Amino acid sequence: MPQRTKRQKIQPRHAGGKPGLAPGTLVFVGERKTQKVRIDVIAYSETSLTERADVSVDQCRDFLRAPGVVWINVNGIHDLELIGALGACLSLHPLTMEDIVNTSQRPKTEEFQEYIYIVLKMMAFGEASRLVKVEHVSLILGDGYVISFLEDEGDPFDEVRQRLRSANGRIRAMKADYLAYALMDAVVDHYFLAIEGIGDRIEEIDDRLLTDPRPEDIQEVHRLKRNILDLRKAVWPLREEIGALEKRESPLFCAETKVFLRDLYDHTIQAIDMLETLRDILGGLQDTYLSSMSNRMNEVMKMLTIIATIFIPLTFIAGVYGMNFEHMPELKWRRGYYLIWGIMIAIGIGMVTYFKKKKWL
Amino acid sequence: MPQRTKRQKIQPRHAGGKPGLAPGTLVFVGERKTQKVRIDVIAYSETSLTERADVSVDQCRDFLRAPGVVWINVNGIHDLELIGALGACLSLHPLTMEDIVNTSQRPKTEEFQEYIYIVLKMMAFGEASRLVKVEHVSLILGDGYVISFLEDEGDPFDEVRQRLRSANGRIRAMKADYLAYALMDAVVDHYFLAIEGIGDRIEEIDDRLLTDPRPEDIQEVHRLKRNILDLRKAVWPLREEIGALEKRESPLFCAETKVFLRDLYDHTIQAIDMLETLRDILGGLQDTYLSSMSNRMNEVMKMLTIIATIFIPLTFIAGVYGMNFEHMPELKWRRGYYLIWGIMIAIGIGMVTYFKKKKWL
Amino acid sequence: MPQRTKRQKIQPRHAGGKPGLAPGTLVFVGERKTQKVRIDVIAYSETSLTERADVSVDQCRDFLRAPGVVWINVNGIHDLELIGALGACLSLHPLTMEDIVNTSQRPKTEEFQEYIYIVLKMMAFGEASRLVKVEHVSLILGDGYVISFLEDEGDPFDEVRQRLRSANGRIRAMKADYLAYALMDAVVDHYFLAIEGIGDRIEEIDDRLLTDPRPEDIQEVHRLKRNILDLRKAVWPLREEIGALEKRESPLFCAETKVFLRDLYDHTIQAIDMLETLRDILGGLQDTYLSSMSNRMNEVMKMLTIIATIFIPLTFIAGVYGMNFEHMPELKWRRGYYLIWGIMIAIGIGMVTYFKKKKWL
Amino acid sequence: MPQRTKRQKIQPRHAGGKPGLAPGTLVFVGERKTQKVRIDVIAYSETSLTERADVSVDQCRDFLRAPGVVWINVNGIHDLELIGALGACLSLHPLTMEDIVNTSQRPKTEEFQEYIYIVLKMMAFGEASRLVKVEHVSLILGDGYVISFLEDEGDPFDEVRQRLRSANGRIRAMKADYLAYALMDAVVDHYFLAIEGIGDRIEEIDDRLLTDPRPEDIQEVHRLKRNILDLRKAVWPLREEIGALEKRESPLFCAETKVFLRDLYDHTIQAIDMLETLRDILGGLQDTYLSSMSNRMNEVMKMLTIIATIFIPLTFIAGVYGMNFEHMPELKWRRGYYLIWGIMIAIGIGMVTYFKKKKWL
Amino acid sequence: MPQRTKRQKIQPRHAGGKPGLAPGTLVFVGERKTQKVRIDVIAYSETSLTERADVSVDQCRDFLRAPGVVWINVNGIHDLELIGALGACLSLHPLTMEDIVNTSQRPKTEEFQEYIYIVLKMMAFGEASRLVKVEHVSLILGDGYVISFLEDEGDPFDEVRQRLRSANGRIRAMKADYLAYALMDAVVDHYFLAIEGIGDRIEEIDDRLLTDPRPEDIQEVHRLKRNILDLRKAVWPLREEIGALEKRESPLFCAETKVFLRDLYDHTIQAIDMLETLRDILGGLQDTYLSSMSNRMNEVMKMLTIIATIFIPLTFIAGVYGMNFEHMPELKWRRGYYLIWGIMIAIGIGMVTYFKKKKWL
Repeated sequence: MPQRTKRQKIQPRHAGGKPGLAPGTLVFVGERKTQKVRIDVIAYSETSLTERADVSVDQCRDFLRAPGVVWINVNGIHDLELIGALGACLSLHPLTMEDIVNTSQRPKTEEFQEYIYIVLKMMAFGEASRLVKVEHVSLILGDGYVISFLEDEGDPFDEVRQRLRSANGRIRAMKADYLAYALMDAVVDHYFLAIEGIGDRIEEIDDRLLTDPRPEDIQEVHRLKRNILDLRKAVWPLREEIGALEKRESPLFCAETKVFLRDLYDHTIQAIDMLETLRDILGGLQDTYLSSMSNRMNEVMKMLTIIATIFIPLTFIAGVYGMNFEHMPELKWRRGYYLIWGIMIAIGIGMVTYFKKKKWL
Repeated sequence: MPQRTKRQKIQPRHAGGKPGLAPGTLVFVGERKTQKVRIDVIAYSETSLTERADVSVDQCRDFLRAPGVVWINVNGIHDLELIGALGACLSLHPLTMEDIVNTSQRPKTEEFQEYIYIVLKMMAFGEASRLVKVEHVSLILGDGYVISFLEDEGDPFDEVRQRLRSANGRIRAMKADYLAYALMDAVVDHYFLAIEGIGDRIEEIDDRLLTDPRPEDIQEVHRLKRNILDLRKAVWPLREEIGALEKRESPLFCAETKVFLRDLYDHTIQAIDMLETLRDILGGLQDTYLSSMSNRMNEVMKMLTIIATIFIPLTFIAGVYGMNFEHMPELKWRRGYYLIWGIMIAIGIGMVTYFKKKKWL
Repeated sequence: MPQRTKRQKIQPRHAGGKPGLAPGTLVFVGERKTQKVRIDVIAYSETSLTERADVSVDQCRDFLRAPGVVWINVNGIHDLELIGALGACLSLHPLTMEDIVNTSQRPKTEEFQEYIYIVLKMMAFGEASRLVKVEHVSLILGDGYVISFLEDEGDPFDEVRQRLRSANGRIRAMKADYLAYALMDAVVDHYFLAIEGIGDRIEEIDDRLLTDPRPEDIQEVHRLKRNILDLRKAVWPLREEIGALEKRESPLFCAETKVFLRDLYDHTIQAIDMLETLRDILGGLQDTYLSSMSNRMNEVMKMLTIIATIFIPLTFIAGVYGMNFEHMPELKWRRGYYLIWGIMIAIGIGMVTYFKKKKWL
Repeated sequence: MPQRTKRQKIQPRHAGGKPGLAPGTLVFVGERKTQKVRIDVIAYSETSLTERADVSVDQCRDFLRAPGVVWINVNGIHDLELIGALGACLSLHPLTMEDIVNTSQRPKTEEFQEYIYIVLKMMAFGEASRLVKVEHVSLILGDGYVISFLEDEGDPFDEVRQRLRSANGRIRAMKADYLAYALMDAVVDHYFLAIEGIGDRIEEIDDRLLTDPRPEDIQEVHRLKRNILDLRKAVWPLREEIGALEKRESPLFCAETKVFLRDLYDHTIQAIDMLETLRDILGGLQDTYLSSMSNRMNEVMKMLTIIATIFIPLTFIAGVYGMNFEHMPELKWRRGYYLIWGIMIAIGIGMVTYFKKKKWL
Repeated sequence: MPQRTKRQKIQPRHAGGKPGLAPGTLVFVGERKTQKVRIDVIAYSETSLTERADVSVDQCRDFLRAPGVVWINVNGIHDLELIGALGACLSLHPLTMEDIVNTSQRPKTEEFQEYIYIVLKMMAFGEASRLVKVEHVSLILGDGYVISFLEDEGDPFDEVRQRLRSANGRIRAMKADYLAYALMDAVVDHYFLAIEGIGDRIEEIDDRLLTDPRPEDIQEVHRLKRNILDLRKAVWPLREEIGALEKRESPLFCAETKVFLRDLYDHTIQAIDMLETLRDILGGLQDTYLSSMSNRMNEVMKMLTIIATIFIPLTFIAGVYGMNFEHMPELKWRRGYYLIWGIMIAIGIGMVTYFKKKKWL
């Protein structure tokens, strides 16, 4: 059986820290990590672009004061102190900060006075575990800036960075809201890769189930089903969320960007459709497996029945003439032995014929 | 087992091209094809009709300037350059063009300043694969023109063309919105043919399941179920879409055409009803198959039980008198052998009677 | 197994004729019939009543011009020419006429300028097929007239006719809308008869399943389930339809009649409730059948096990003393044979006791 | 198997009498009864109370003219003449009277000019049938009077009567709307008794299923399930109905009573919750039964397998040395017999060990 | 099998006391307890805090007159007299008091003139029963005070008390509405602990089901499922309730607190998500168990089949040569015995090879 990866725990992770803690207290509930949290900044306008890796919170503050659009990307959310400092510098609401580090928060958008807070989920298909890992992504869209928080170094935003660097794309000409859209779009685009990963895996199993079904396969089907349940939980609320963003009358989102949000909304529905399809297929695989197993069982049972029903009567006949009665006239017949063989063969052929007629053979 | 056709892949096709590409980038995600994409044009008014096959994009532009209704039909969407040129000439929104070539886009309608964009799905029952193939169809309804994009040469629009050519139909007297309706109606009419194809197939299997159930049949039931799931995804959103078109206050759709849209809406619901019925029937077939299989198994098991329970005790008796003890008085009895036969026959008859009473035989 | 009647085809009937036909083209999709379509007319006011059977379309026109309420009943919809002529005489919309002859049209109401068009479904329990047959009924309610179209001669409207003939009922005093209501009410009242027919049939099967389950019964359960699915499709939309009629602000329906529509709405819900109950019961019957079958199987298997497990060891013992070794001291013992019998009987009794303790016997 | 009570017929009872009868025709569809229908009247104000049993319709009319609140309780609805007379005296709408005697009418409220008509259902757990019986209750709330119609003598209103008689309760101080509420509350309170009755029954079965599952139990589970389906149909519409009463702007219900209606609404939801819980539990019991049965079957099969797989090879060995070949050297060996015993015992122990290792034993 | 704890009764507890009691009558329906009900009071403002344990109702009244926020916590609801006195002192509506002591009341909020009444449910994972126990909690939020009623001494509010005592938290600076929020938040935070408790338990079972499935495990799965059904009933209505509180325009809840209510709403949804996940997992465990059991059964059956089908024919052969016919030439052959061994071994090897080819071995 494929090993269960460490991440795939059944146990729900704790949502709001210790019970009774004051709301807004930062409690990181994901896997403890030790690597340093790196902050990267890209500041750009239609004509210029500055890129700086590994900056401090103070440097961030300077960037935010500059004109143009500033994108601050935080690679890790386990350094609560740093997150706290950044939150203070941006004057984020305590609940926003709680949600940034709470990896079990479901996708949502919240509008505050100064910014819109967007929670969404990354997906990455893990080749080793053959399952999709879900990661927590937070975006803060303010006036002229976007701040993105990633749980890990695994980075879905590389292509966006490339497009920013090439001076001639639409993205450079537009505002921070388009950048936020572009980041969300990149996240959703990765969904398709992840779903395809699972899809390939399911196809492999499907092929095998027909030819050589094994108990491990059905275990994996169960595991994939559970995985897809998790993914659905990541995508379903996202759909409503993007729909709400599109409808919301916020000065931070301009009409031009909203057309793109509608497109993103379509993509999210498409991802949901694919997940539902995969779920249906997995349900079908379970049926296939069960009927495959029961077919096999039936074959085995038929074999037993045929062998047993043919030979049990014959053995009885042999047993009869193995009895030691003194007066058994057949035993004295010259051709008795051959006659008995004849009878036994006739019974055997008769039975096989009967089974053939009944389509059991 | 019928071979799986190349198209029926489990793996969801990629929706938005490579992740992170700028939105509006044209990425064709269907099967690569090499044949030339042909553009046909029909321009007509109540009194005249001009038909031209295989025109260039420039010629299209000329047609669009003429009065009357122009219908441009594009047979293929894999030539991204040509689609791009056409899009530019009609000043389509980049997202519309992305959706035209993205065969995994689900049915929808989008209203832009200059035109209404309609995505729907064609269905064709493939005799070889005995499954329904779903194809991507896009319609663009502008002021005085309709542009249709088909994925393949397989053409659902022939009858519409015939009706256009015969000068006396209602279609010639009406505007472009009626043409768009007529094209959608032709697509939906083909649904019924495709659904009937599946229905015939299901009926065949249903007949066989009762008389001679085979594992292949249940495999095909699973395959058909999956196929119907795909079809539902093509029809369900279409229903909402047509309902929305009917309600939308667009200057492009006149009231007279809306009555026909309501009729089309009815047809779509009918197609959904049929699909749901087929789905229910397939579910019933699975039950039939399972109970058929288990009936058969029960018969086999009963046969085993009867043979075994009759002969096992008899064989034991024969075994007893096959023992070699020196002092076994029965062996010396003159009529011992016949007595034993009598006992054994009595036991056999007794058992058969018991089974008959229990209704096992 | 009861024969499948001709009508109960799985294959969905074609909805809109040949694909691509102009909408409004009349295509009859039911069973081809040859008998003549008869038109009956009843014209009445509070004080007078004229009844004429087998009238021509021209005579209909004359009746419609007269004051009072006119009810035209068309017994058959397979004579497209006659339907067309009648439609022309009443200036019906082409789509209405398409729906009148399209027996696969689901229940709906449509309001046109001059009339309200109502589609509903008749139900009749067929004694031979032991299934409910669904028929297509269309009503057209105009100012002062009602036209009803029946698929067949089988006529649900006899009681309404009786009430019309007796001069003192409420029906004679009221307008055409009340007549339309009365006809719909008669149709819905027949639902209860049909549902009771199925209910009786289900009760018969239920009784038998407990005492003597047979594979045919489960086949019939499946068939009845499918039948009920069809009926639900006939009743569910009717409910919404009547609800809509009640709410609609049409001059053709007066407030007094709407109270009765609400009552009809209640009856429809009751019919739905009964169908849902029957469906649940059928689901329960399947469970009963399965557990009945598996109980029986378990009994059979237990019998096999008990016989086999008792006699297999005994046969082994007999086999041992049937061996031909020269040095087998037990064979020489005077009481060896009786001893062995004792041992075998003891083993037999021990096993039976063990099985009894385990509650297997 | 517990006998099926007469009431628990599968067949749906006819709803609207003979098909085609004029609406408003009184048709009693319950069980025919012969006992006399008794009318009891209580007239009260804050300071006085008059109670009269077995009054005539004319006496009712006199009571209704008096000031204060009048409660007329009709114990039986099978005397259509009496109901008709009462309806005429109160000028009830014909459809109301049809619904009063139609025991298959589902719960609903209807507001007429002069009164509000309320249909609800009584529940009583029958000790003999161990099922809940559903009865039809109608209430008519007019200005200053409440009329209640019960199907049977079984009377849920005793406690209300007691409270009326004791002069100091809230009920005497309030209007007819509060009395109507109190009657509905009494009916709903009886639901909990009935549901508890079923709950006790389910608990008994649950206990037995774990220790000694029997086919009768699963039959009873099915029966209880069907019973709960019936109860749900009685409670679900009641909930909506009370919700609607609370929201409706009727002069007959004052604001003070509406607070109590909200409480009643809560109780109804609680009853629904309990029914749903019981339904889930019954579903679980079915699973328990099935897994219990299959566990038992597995044990039986294991026993068979172990006995058979141990002794079949041993019997073969004994059979070999029972052969009568002239040249079988082992037969001549001095210790051949003991050696063979040793081999057979070794094989037996080996097999048992193998089974233990495989955890089959 | 783990013992069923006393609390986990199937039987629904009675909701509104004896049927027909006047509404507002106090009836305690939980477990009878005898310990004294203790009332604790904390009165605080931003600068001061007074804490008093075990106060009388009269003392409560004094506290309520003081400025600042007063929190009265009642540890037990089985002393109906005390609850009645407290209710009178606060002039609570009779229905509120009925709901405070009615432990089967589902979560809800009700707004009265003077106060908001909030019902919610506590959860505590019991280590002994390995199930979650649900307790009844009532909150009354008035102008300047919060009164909380707990069913038991088990107290979820300790952390809130700690935060109140430390003078520098946000809680001291805010009004009674924030205190009510903090108490609800504490209750909801405990949900996660309880759900984790179940989650751990499920994980244990999940691990065991794969390696060593036992009937007890599936019994526990059923028990946990039922438990989760109960929990869902506690959380689902809470969600709507908090959503309603957030939207309600009550002067008792200020805008600042509503942001926190939204956060609480998120937490509730998260709890629901976790419960749904656990439910799905339990459903999966049932499947795993069943397929595990049937795998095991299949293995057992295969073993039987293989042993039986190999040895039954061989035993027959041995039986044949154990017959006592006088003329059996093979018995006289010098190498007959060895030949027969050879044939039997060949048949055995042939069969094993056949089984291997069929992948049964």
